[in-house]
Order: sequence, then structure tokens, then C-alpha cells
Amino acid sequence: MKVISDPRKMQDFSRMSRRAGKVIGFVPTMGALHRGHLELVRASRRKDDVTLASIYVNPLQFGPKEDFNKYPRMLAADLRLLSGLKVDAVYTPSNKEMYPEGFSTEVQVTGPLVKGLCAPFRPGHFDGVATVVVKLLGATLPTRLYLGQKDAQQVAVLKRVVRDLDLEVEVVACPTVREKDGLAMSSRNLRLSEKGRALAPVLYRGLRAGRGQALSGKRDARTVLAVVRRTISREREVKLQYLEVVERDSLRPVKRVGSGTMIALAAHLENVRLIDNIIV
Amino acid sequence: MKVISDPRKMQDFSRMSRRAGKVIGFVPTMGALHRGHLELVRASRRKDDVTLASIYVNPLQFGPKEDFNKYPRMLAADLRLLSGLKVDAVYTPSNKEMYPEGFSTEVQVTGPLVKGLCAPFRPGHFDGVATVVVKLLGATLPTRLYLGQKDAQQVAVLKRVVRDLDLEVEVVACPTVREKDGLAMSSRNLRLSEKGRALAPVLYRGLRAGRGQALSGKRDARTVLAVVRRTISREREVKLQYLEVVERDSLRPVKRVGSGTMIALAAHLENVRLIDNIIV
Repeated sequence: MKVISDPRKMQDFSRMSRRAGKVIGFVPTMGALHRGHLELVRASRRKDDVTLASIYVNPLQFGPKEDFNKYPRMLAADLRLLSGLKVDAVYTPSNKEMYPEGFSTEVQVTGPLVKGLCAPFRPGHFDGVATVVVKLLGATLPTRLYLGQKDAQQVAVLKRVVRDLDLEVEVVACPTVREKDGLAMSSRNLRLSEKGRALAPVLYRGLRAGRGQALSGKRDARTVLAVVRRTISREREVKLQYLEVVERDSLRPVKRVGSGTMIALAAHLENVRLIDNIIV
Repeated sequence: MKVISDPRKMQDFSRMSRRAGKVIGFVPTMGALHRGHLELVRASRRKDDVTLASIYVNPLQFGPKEDFNKYPRMLAADLRLLSGLKVDAVYTPSNKEMYPEGFSTEVQVTGPLVKGLCAPFRPGHFDGVATVVVKLLGATLPTRLYLGQKDAQQVAVLKRVVRDLDLEVEVVACPTVREKDGLAMSSRNLRLSEKGRALAPVLYRGLRAGRGQALSGKRDARTVLAVVRRTISREREVKLQYLEVVERDSLRPVKRVGSGTMIALAAHLENVRLIDNIIV
């Protein structure tokens, strides 16, 4: 497995692969890999001739008060995992290679996709995501881009950016991978204490309770949200930041929970911010 | 010569060419082609295996009071010219294909490159240029991007965007092509009356006078600018919008005119906005 930090060398690698007629799959990550990431890699391994991953904790997508410095980093272990899955090359640029002196360009996203959910609580976050992903696509030149559905707003925003900028890549969203107790896999779970980790599955229990309510026929959004909120409020250390029902692709709020509706939330637990969602 | 308006079909064409190992040159234009454009095409014909051009008057780079509606359009004649130069394919997307309902993404450029020259007089212009060019590159997938040095700030901005976003393309800037009387070729020259056309060469005469002053050893920027201004002020219908001396790559203002300094200006004549520049 090649480990490449220079964007030109990454492009050379991908250009050669493409010239050989190969289909390239790409899995962008911020490292601290868990089974969710590894399922993205496996999805690419099944479909593509070449699988690339990147490991880069992107400062541009963290707010000044967010957990950029506390974000878990474990490069050696990550590389072992990727190598074990026969990833062809890993792109590991430095901050200096990504944002050198004089860096002046940003990809900005506006409109309904960045009105609700995480966006108002993380100003600039999705612009940072869009910018880094456009850069990563420029360096890795993939045919397919694999993203996890846990970050549903990120998936919707990046699909929009890819379409809007006519980028030659197909976005593949893969289902959220969960722990046995239902907690959505996230690198940030590592930052929870044992006690926090034991409480965290209440988020998914809440979402399932909301979905159950909707499927039982009581589809009014307020009623569904009340059920989710009641379930989660049983754990007093878990503080909901937002809880919304939206149409899964447009992310527009809906008043009735139908098929294709997503219930999505963010919550704080021990100063760790967790997100999750469920499709009805 | 293929004429393609669908971005996916344009990508298919380029992907095939690349897979065949071909080097692709790309000349983006807003049509109303003149010899300046044709020299860009010829430069690509000499260096590249495949030459692509685009014709698209990009609404995003025109301000609300600018000449989007008056910009000259002559598609049939343009296609004949490109076909005569053996261009392989021309990309002619519609506004609906470029900016469909729900379009939400913009490439924004900040910093010293967009502090002076045209930028303060055309708010949003370079963001519009950056956005459309990133889209055109996404659709045409070129190895080389050919731009005219007459639009010096555009060249500097797009070089920055290409580097910042790790786009896999080399920017090639070609010298300004001039009429016999020195007027820089521009599609907007078509909008001048016969009388205006006769006055317009004073811009380049002014720039040459300034360069002459600097080369004679009087290198103080204010002195040089005074010479340019005096020359141009002889034609009272020509209204300077700005006149600056800047470092040619960084576009930072300089106080002494040395080698690599650019004298650049914009002026209005008969409500037509003309720009030009000269390197000392």
C-alpha cells in the first residue's frame, strides 16, 4: 500500500490508474478509523479496480470552539487497518500541503441544504467540508466517492457540490454502521468515558421510538419528535442540540413523517457532540 | 468537430481521450471570437493531442448593471472559426445546464489578488469566473487550460484557484494579441462605433509611454502613472476607471516600476469597458 502526501504524486498515481482503464473508488476520512469507515472501503473494494483512502483532519471544517485539537489521531493503526483491507494508496497530506501560505479559495454552499440540522450550530463547517472534498477529489481523481449516511447533511451537501461543479465523480452513500447496542459508529465515541459510552445508545433508541410512532400511523411531526425527545430526556446527561424531521434528500422540514422522511439529531454528552439519524 | 452541450457527454468525450493517453488542451471563451482566442486555440493545437473550446456567456460573472445582455453573440460564426482550426470539440452548455434550479455552490476567492484592479469595480466578478471555470474544467477534464494575458487578473486568480483546489490542470497564459494600431483584441471592441474604435488605441499608447518612462530610468510609480494618465487624457471621451502598477504575479501594488511590474488599467469609452496591461 502506497502512502502519499504530495498532491501532485497522488494525481500521478490516479492518472496512471485511469489511463489503464481502471475505476477508482475513494474513501475520505479524518482517521481514527472504525467499522463505518471500513465498510466504505469494502464497498469500494467490491465495485472498483482501485481503492484509495485519505486521512486528513481538516482544520477548515472545525469552528474556533470545536474539537479540532481533541479529535482522535492514530495514523499508524489506521494505516494498518487500511493495508489489511488491501487499499491501494492512502493520501495523507499535511496542513501545509493543503493550505499553504496565500491560500485564497473556498467552496461555499448556500440554500436550503445548509439552513437546518447541523448548519446553524456549525457556521462555516459545510464550506470547510466542501472545500476540502473538492481538493481531495482533485488530488485523487476518483470515479466513485464513498460517504457514510450517518453524516446525512454532509452527503446531501456533497452531492449538491458534485452536481453543481460538474465534478466527474459518482457519490455513493453507505448505511450507518452501528455498535451492537445501536450507537452509530463515530471516531468521537472514543472521547466518551465508559459511563458516557453506556448512555450514548439512548440517541438511537430515541430515533427508533420516533420511527415506531410514525409507522404506527401517528405521523404528525410534532408527535413523533415528542416521542424521540421523551425517550432521550430519560438520560439527563444527554443534551439535545437539535431534533428535526426533514425530507431525506432536500433536507427540507416536513410536517408529516412519511416514507423518505429522516429524523435527525445532534446531542452533547460529556462535551462530545454526537449526531445520528434514521430514515422512516 | 463535435458540438456538445451536455456536461456528462462532454466528460465522456474527454474521459475517452484521456484513456487513450491523449493530452487535452482547453480554451474557455464567451464567444464573439477574435484573433486573441484563435491564438489560444493554435497554442493548444501545437502542444496537445486534443483541443477543446467552450462558448458560454456566463451570467454569474456579470454585475446587475453590466453588459451581459449586450455582450456580442455569434455562435454560428464562432463554430466555423473553431472548425477551421481543427478544434476537436466545442462545449456549448445552456444556462439551464450550467445553473439549474437549486444551484447552491460558489467558488469564492479572497486575499490580495482580488483587492485591486478590476475587483473593487466588479464585485462578485472573480467568484463568478472561478465558479464557471471550475465547472468548465469539471466537464472538459483538460490537461492544459489556455488563457489570454489581457485578462491578467483573471489569469492570476485562476492560477491561484487551480493550485488551491488541487485541480489537475496546467494554466498556460498566452500574450495579448493586438490590432495593428495596438488596441488589445477584445470581443467588446465590436461594441465601439467607428469613432470610438479610432480613439481606443490611446490606451495602449498610454501604457507604452509609461513603460518607456520606466525604461528610461524614471521608475517612481507615481511618475510613470502620470505619464500614462497624461497620454490617455488627450482623448476626453476615454474615462479611466483605474490605473495601477502592480507586481505581475501577486498583483500587489509597487512603488517602483521594475522588471516584472505590470501597468494595468480599465477605461470606459462609449459605455464600453475596456481593459489592457503591459509588462515592463
